[in-house]
Amino acid sequence: MNLLKQKYTLPAGKIDLTSFGEVLVDLITTGEDMALAKATLFQRYFGGAAANVAINMKKLDNKCALISRVGDDSLGQYLKNILVKEKINIEGLQCDPTRRTPLILVNKSKKTPSWLPYRGADRYIEDKEINYRLIKNSKIFFLTTFILSQKPSRTTALRALDYALQEDKIIAFDPCYRPQLWPEENNGYQLVKRIIGTADFIKPSLDDAHSFFGPDTPENYLQRYLKLGAKIVILTMGEAGVLAGDEKTTIRIPIYPTTAVDVTGAGDSFWAGFMTGILSGFTVERSIKLGSGTAAYKVKNIGALSPIPGKEEIISSFNI
Amino acid sequence: MNLLKQKYTLPAGKIDLTSFGEVLVDLITTGEDMALAKATLFQRYFGGAAANVAINMKKLDNKCALISRVGDDSLGQYLKNILVKEKINIEGLQCDPTRRTPLILVNKSKKTPSWLPYRGADRYIEDKEINYRLIKNSKIFFLTTFILSQKPSRTTALRALDYALQEDKIIAFDPCYRPQLWPEENNGYQLVKRIIGTADFIKPSLDDAHSFFGPDTPENYLQRYLKLGAKIVILTMGEAGVLAGDEKTTIRIPIYPTTAVDVTGAGDSFWAGFMTGILSGFTVERSIKLGSGTAAYKVKNIGALSPIPGKEEIISSFNI
Repeated sequence: MNLLKQKYTLPAGKIDLTSFGEVLVDLITTGEDMALAKATLFQRYFGGAAANVAINMKKLDNKCALISRVGDDSLGQYLKNILVKEKINIEGLQCDPTRRTPLILVNKSKKTPSWLPYRGADRYIEDKEINYRLIKNSKIFFLTTFILSQKPSRTTALRALDYALQEDKIIAFDPCYRPQLWPEENNGYQLVKRIIGTADFIKPSLDDAHSFFGPDTPENYLQRYLKLGAKIVILTMGEAGVLAGDEKTTIRIPIYPTTAVDVTGAGDSFWAGFMTGILSGFTVERSIKLGSGTAAYKVKNIGALSPIPGKEEIISSFNI
Repeated sequence: MNLLKQKYTLPAGKIDLTSFGEVLVDLITTGEDMALAKATLFQRYFGGAAANVAINMKKLDNKCALISRVGDDSLGQYLKNILVKEKINIEGLQCDPTRRTPLILVNKSKKTPSWLPYRGADRYIEDKEINYRLIKNSKIFFLTTFILSQKPSRTTALRALDYALQEDKIIAFDPCYRPQLWPEENNGYQLVKRIIGTADFIKPSLDDAHSFFGPDTPENYLQRYLKLGAKIVILTMGEAGVLAGDEKTTIRIPIYPTTAVDVTGAGDSFWAGFMTGILSGFTVERSIKLGSGTAAYKVKNIGALSPIPGKEEIISSFNI
C-alpha cells in the first residue's frame, strides 16, 4: 500500500489536536551576527514548538489543547495570556509553584548560531495532574523531543504517549534531538529511536537528521528513519523542499515561491498545515503540500506566530 | 569603647578583600514602569553584589579576589571577561560543566518593581574547589546573603566563613535577606541572624531591614541588629543618609549632594568605599563617609559599575 496516497480514518474526538510539549520564552538577540557572549539586547518572544504548533493549528480552525507546565511567575502569566487569547484549551497547562517558566537565550546569527536554555517547570510535568480525557477526546496526539530530554516530564510524556497509542490516536512526533539537552544520561538517542518506531508521522528537518545520525544524504536519512519503524517520514530541507516517504515510495515536493523574511517557526507552521490536511481527509501527499503552503505564508513575516491565512486561502493560492 | 571612633588593626594578607558570593547577568527591562509580564526588551548587565563590590574595591586601588561559580557557557564567559578586564583575582571563580550561569530578569519600574531569578551554577559552589589560601591571604572576608540561600553553596560559604573567623579576618556581611530566594526550608531567617552575630560590619539597607524584621523605625532596626550580636551596624537609608551604631553610640551621616541618575549598585559602591576606608586605617565614622562619597559618584551614571574616581579625589571632593 502506498501510504502517501492514503487518506486517514480519523479517530473519534472533539479535540483535533492535543500537543504535549514545551511552551517557553525565547529571548532573542537583536541585531545580526552578535555572539551570545557579546549581545547586549534581547527581545522577548513566545516560543516552544508544542505551543507554536497548537496555535498555528488553531489559526487553521482546529480545536487544540496543550499539555505543558510553566512557573507561577510573570513569564508564565505572559505565556498563559497568549494561549488564552489564541483560544487554546489550557486545561492541561500545569503551573509549578516553585520552579521557573523556561526561557532560552537565542542568538539569531547565521555565522555562529547558538542558544542557551534555562529550564525549570517544563522538566516537571506531573503525571498525576494529567487529564487523560483530553487525550481520549483528541484525534491527533503531537509530541516534541525537547520535553522528553529530562525526567520527570519524560516519564509523564511516555505514559501519555502509551495512552494515546492504546486509544488508537494518530501519533505525530517531532524528532528534534539535541544531545546537549540530555544531561542526565546518554540514552536519549535510544529513546527517540524507540518513539520514532511508534509514530504515524515524523517530520525531521535536515538539522534534526544531522544531529541524530551525523552527516549523510537526505535519501539515506529518509531510509534510516524508516528502518527505525517510522510509518511516514517527512524530511523538510528548507529551500530544497520536502523529501517524504514510506517503506514503498519516496516523493519530492518543492517549496512554494515566497519571500522569506524569517524562517523561525517555519517547521511548526508546516506541522500545522500538514496535520490540518490529515484532519481534512486529504492524502498524505496533499497534506504535505498544505504544510508547505502554510510555511510559505509564515516565513513572509517575523516571528514564529506571524499571521497565516485560512486553510481555503492557502489551498487556492498554491493550487493545492 | 566607641567602636565608631576606632581604627582597625588589619590582619596580615597580600589580598585586601576576598568577596564570596554571586556574579550573574542582570537582564533589565528597557523603558520605565513596564511590568515583567509585559516587557518585551531586556538589556544585559553585569551583576551580582559580591562581584560589584570586588570591582568597585579594585577601582579604589585594592587587591580583590572573588569566590563564585558560573556556568561553562557564553554568559559565564561574558562575566569572566569583565572580571579579568577589571583585574579581579579569579582563581576562586569556579566553572560548572553542566549548570547555567545565573541570570535575573529585573523590572526597574518604580511602581511595581519585580525580579525573577534563574539560578544555576551559583547554587553549587564546591567546597573541595575552594582555595583556602585566598582567604588566609586576605585582610577582609566579604559575604553576601544571596549565596547562602541554597545548598550546597550555603554549606561551602559557612565553611569559608568559619575559616575566615578562625584566621581572625575582618568579616563584612551584607544581610540582604529575601525570603523568596530560600525555597528549601524556612530557616533562612535564623541562619542570617546567626551570621550577623559573627560579623564585624553589616550594612543593611532600609529594604533589607524591612524584609528581615518587618515594619519598624530606623532606630529600632539598628538596635535589633545590634541585639543579634553585630558589632557595627551601618543602616543605609537612601536620601536620608546613614544611621550607624555600635552598642554604645549612634551616629547619623547625611548623604553628600549629588545628581542621582541611577541608584543601581549604590550599596555595593558604598561597601567598597567603606572597606577602603577601613583598609586605609580610617576610623569607622570616616570610612562610612568614604562609603557615602563613593556612592555619591556611582549614582551620577547608569549601571552598577559606572565610573568612580580614585580615593583621593573622593576624599577631597567631599572634605572627608
